[in-house]
Amino acid sequence: MISVQEATTIIQNHLGNFETETIPLSECVGRVLREDILADMPFPSFDRVMMDGIAINSEGWNSGVRTFPIQEMQPAGVPKVSLNNKHHCIEVMTGAVLPDHTDVVIPYEEIDIKNHEATISLASVTAWKNIHRTSSDRQMSDLLLSQNIMISPAEIATLAAVGKSEVIVLKQPKVAVISTGDELVEVNETPASHQIRKSNSYALKASLEEMKISASLIHLPDERQEVIDQLSTLTAKYDVIILSGGVSKGKKDHIPEALEMVGVEKHFHRVKQRPGKPFWFGTKGNTTIFALPGNPVATFLCFYRYVKPWLMASMKVNNTANQPMALLTADYEFTAPLTYFLQVNTSHKDGMLLATPIAGKGSGDFTNLNQADGFLELPESQSKFKAGEIYQYISFR
Amino acid sequence: MISVQEATTIIQNHLGNFETETIPLSECVGRVLREDILADMPFPSFDRVMMDGIAINSEGWNSGVRTFPIQEMQPAGVPKVSLNNKHHCIEVMTGAVLPDHTDVVIPYEEIDIKNHEATISLASVTAWKNIHRTSSDRQMSDLLLSQNIMISPAEIATLAAVGKSEVIVLKQPKVAVISTGDELVEVNETPASHQIRKSNSYALKASLEEMKISASLIHLPDERQEVIDQLSTLTAKYDVIILSGGVSKGKKDHIPEALEMVGVEKHFHRVKQRPGKPFWFGTKGNTTIFALPGNPVATFLCFYRYVKPWLMASMKVNNTANQPMALLTADYEFTAPLTYFLQVNTSHKDGMLLATPIAGKGSGDFTNLNQADGFLELPESQSKFKAGEIYQYISFR
Repeated sequence: MISVQEATTIIQNHLGNFETETIPLSECVGRVLREDILADMPFPSFDRVMMDGIAINSEGWNSGVRTFPIQEMQPAGVPKVSLNNKHHCIEVMTGAVLPDHTDVVIPYEEIDIKNHEATISLASVTAWKNIHRTSSDRQMSDLLLSQNIMISPAEIATLAAVGKSEVIVLKQPKVAVISTGDELVEVNETPASHQIRKSNSYALKASLEEMKISASLIHLPDERQEVIDQLSTLTAKYDVIILSGGVSKGKKDHIPEALEMVGVEKHFHRVKQRPGKPFWFGTKGNTTIFALPGNPVATFLCFYRYVKPWLMASMKVNNTANQPMALLTADYEFTAPLTYFLQVNTSHKDGMLLATPIAGKGSGDFTNLNQADGFLELPESQSKFKAGEIYQYISFR
Repeated sequence: MISVQEATTIIQNHLGNFETETIPLSECVGRVLREDILADMPFPSFDRVMMDGIAINSEGWNSGVRTFPIQEMQPAGVPKVSLNNKHHCIEVMTGAVLPDHTDVVIPYEEIDIKNHEATISLASVTAWKNIHRTSSDRQMSDLLLSQNIMISPAEIATLAAVGKSEVIVLKQPKVAVISTGDELVEVNETPASHQIRKSNSYALKASLEEMKISASLIHLPDERQEVIDQLSTLTAKYDVIILSGGVSKGKKDHIPEALEMVGVEKHFHRVKQRPGKPFWFGTKGNTTIFALPGNPVATFLCFYRYVKPWLMASMKVNNTANQPMALLTADYEFTAPLTYFLQVNTSHKDGMLLATPIAGKGSGDFTNLNQADGFLELPESQSKFKAGEIYQYISFR
């Protein structure tokens, strides 16, 4: 058995390599950018009026003029007009291009308009005031977005502004989520007294969906040859295979043997952790296989602790925040020489993330997860964990 | 002008009221549950074997037997068998129903199997060990999920387990995102020298999409009568209208007047904040109208500071974490008597959320948002903000 840290290192040493594709801007949020985005024009692209009011030439002001006849109006979205007389002004609207021969905008709050003349009530006027100068934010060809970032709404604004109606992004990996276990029936079936409904694979599919990855759901029966035949096909077809169940020591736990028989190289089996000890990990060519224990909480933990970080690293996402830590709010004891993943719910207080243990009824009770927000990672080197201590936190909400 | 706190209170006093709908389980993640979910059977629904090994009757052990002939096997997913002799055992697999007349499971690690007989190497045996007793997690009809929670993958597992292939959820509100301003052209167009491409409305649509709300994008020209006509139709058709631009004091800022002319009751216009001072808010019947300033950063801030919390409250979501605070890592000064929303990027350190100001070039520079993770809310009552102080944090990633 290896440690949690060893398992993490091995997994991170076997990253996937996914392709790119071009998709419409409207589908980009939550996807990973795979091209550098440059400014296709300066930002702003013109001297932009920032206040509603009048534009004057500061030389006119400096010559002593305080009342400026209004020559015309320069609304936003209208080609640039030109001030013909430095003792006159042009009424301007926010977002408009600054008229030629003007260099300062005086907002309506500071002027009084009567008979088509604007009288300025200010004591002094500074050139270029209330004007967003062209190129002041970004120069033409400046790098606005580097590739390998997760696209959020803020990036959508930038992509739209530079005219990227289509964007090169990471092609999402093809993922199969495979349930195993003859005791499982479909959600819409009524289980017999020795059966239960599938739930792990639906949770995994939903977790992947939150990463914009659409997974195929597949079920394997507890029949050795059938498992081998199907895994042979599936490992050739998918980039990532996430199995749930069938990795313990039972007579029907065919998964590890079957994976090796179809040519998957095992990198580890069994990790010093609870839940999730029987976790198995391997690769075959470009296909990565996570065979997670069938205990629902173990499946869930292993996804968020190992699979999701592997996906993020394989997708080369580099603009996510670092891993948070959280402060344990109550003493906890766990004596087995294993890393324990404690179900906690969290709250924020004065900038701190607080983690409060859930009163659980055993690691298999997945309904506890509904009260929890994540797991606190309690290291195997300790058995007593005191309120006020700080540990790594893995969020699943 | 009202304060940020007054604006917040007014908005929260005018919550929307949305309907419900029934959708397939596969579409539920990220939606709001609108029915209570009860256990349709006990959890576990049978005495469930937790380890691979053998099941015995503890009376057999207590009578001194240590070697138990194996009667048969009880795999998972197979109807329950029955132990015929207390001095025999049944081989059992994880997830199987516990055979009748057995009350303890001994894992393979603690036994030695030879000639169809299992010899136990343990010093003592405790009844019900390694058995997940029926009803020990939840009783039949126990409340598993209360309505008005955001459905995450953990809840998907629970919904699947109780057979909810269809779920009653909140029907997402009908939202229109409306851009204004004659200077705006489409993303796939090349702007003339007095034009820019639309970006705010795409960012808003993407932000709503992250809440699983699909918004319609609409553009209004700077023509008074056209604005009035269109708003008259749109306020009748949508639950929520989010406008961007047209709320300042300019001659082409027709939105506030037009909204009042079509019968929208104004609740406030202008908030003591930067960015976003010209923010306008009103309602007409069941339609709520957020008219946000057109400055891209102001639009973005107002969405995350006001519109999103209003949506969450209107959707009655009650399982989200409380509002985080973050620690300012550098001194900052802002002297205007306004609440200032400082763009920051964040990191985690020892359980604390740290917020570092972005070196910005003015609030209109939306490309700064690409470096930021959110806004720190610096209250209007102060002008100097010291490193180490803690303020409300509004995340947009």
